[in-house]
Amino acid sequence: MDISALFKLSYGVYIIGVKDGERNAGCVVTTVSQSTSKPVTITVCVNKENYTNACIKKTNAFSVSVLSEKVKESIIGTFGFSCSKDKDKFSSISSALTSSGIPYVNEGVTAFFQCKVIEFFENFTHTIFIGEVQEAKVLSEEKPMTYDYYHNVIKGKAPKTASTYVDDSQLPKPSGGFYKCSICGYEHPASREEFEKLPNDFRCPMCQVEKSLFVFTG
Amino acid sequence: MDISALFKLSYGVYIIGVKDGERNAGCVVTTVSQSTSKPVTITVCVNKENYTNACIKKTNAFSVSVLSEKVKESIIGTFGFSCSKDKDKFSSISSALTSSGIPYVNEGVTAFFQCKVIEFFENFTHTIFIGEVQEAKVLSEEKPMTYDYYHNVIKGKAPKTASTYVDDSQLPKPSGGFYKCSICGYEHPASREEFEKLPNDFRCPMCQVEKSLFVFTG
Repeated sequence: MDISALFKLSYGVYIIGVKDGERNAGCVVTTVSQSTSKPVTITVCVNKENYTNACIKKTNAFSVSVLSEKVKESIIGTFGFSCSKDKDKFSSISSALTSSGIPYVNEGVTAFFQCKVIEFFENFTHTIFIGEVQEAKVLSEEKPMTYDYYHNVIKGKAPKTASTYVDDSQLPKPSGGFYKCSICGYEHPASREEFEKLPNDFRCPMCQVEKSLFVFTG
Repeated sequence: MDISALFKLSYGVYIIGVKDGERNAGCVVTTVSQSTSKPVTITVCVNKENYTNACIKKTNAFSVSVLSEKVKESIIGTFGFSCSKDKDKFSSISSALTSSGIPYVNEGVTAFFQCKVIEFFENFTHTIFIGEVQEAKVLSEEKPMTYDYYHNVIKGKAPKTASTYVDDSQLPKPSGGFYKCSICGYEHPASREEFEKLPNDFRCPMCQVEKSLFVFTG
């Protein structure tokens, strides 16, 4: 099987928001699709290991924030490469509440939805949630970010728990010098010399970890 | 609810292929997503009214052809706006068979998959199929077509049975003159005078119906 065929599928990039008692939780997903138009339902696929998954099952409700191409990379890093169990990811970013009080991101976002879970199905490592859309609003006319844009323009990676995760040790290496973030997989194009010249407070633009956690991959 | 928020979700454009006894059947969908990576599974959402839906349930197998931006519009028209019950849609286009003998489109396509259905769920008007990928191959390095490209560059529409169908009488009308195909919704930009000047054998580039089935929408 040629796994690079999976890169030909097109996705957007979204943040799922959910209430966790008095706190907020959330994560990045690429797998949001409209399923029906009468009633309007959407499907979302979330890894069972994601803390957000358990919160959706507990509350039967979630928000979807549709990221635009203008979203700050650190927002994707915060939601994609850290765990809601350890911190309130919404505390450091601009957000608002849906009519039912579910948090959503309102900066660098083109639209948001509030959904009520009407059913969910387990599929190996992931859960497929079907949500009925209860509230929907366009927030800006910026271009929605596609996963292709994230992958090819921002050079972002999928975390290991993502539906779209592909183990890139199975793929040919890019030519030229790269430093790879050992936490999120972000690749910074630089020779050894160029990387050394970066200031000591350089941090991964995706997941914010420090310079020492980058590894030269050739 | 602001339904135009649904336009901010990103999709590709795909043709689902299936065996129908000795014949072939298929339809266009936008809702193909990878769901898990171990094993590799994908989800596809197909309207219950589509003949293809019944064929998938009968055979538990389907192919996915990933359309590129270079695909002929008539291929989308054939698969999106006519019924496999009445004709073998694969008979007029370039196609091949997967290792299990399921037809797929091999012209204007960037990759194909062969999937075995491991489960399906009904969701109002649609069925969500979970397929395990058994075969996957990249066919070209052309850009995969996104639904955004189909909608904004080709000016294509979704058939009424699509997951992404939106009743556009609920949306503001485009300014300027348009002739709309009464079968597939394709909008041809032209004033009454310009449209009259088109040759009598002008056909809808999407669904191939004749000029007389176009209606001026202002």
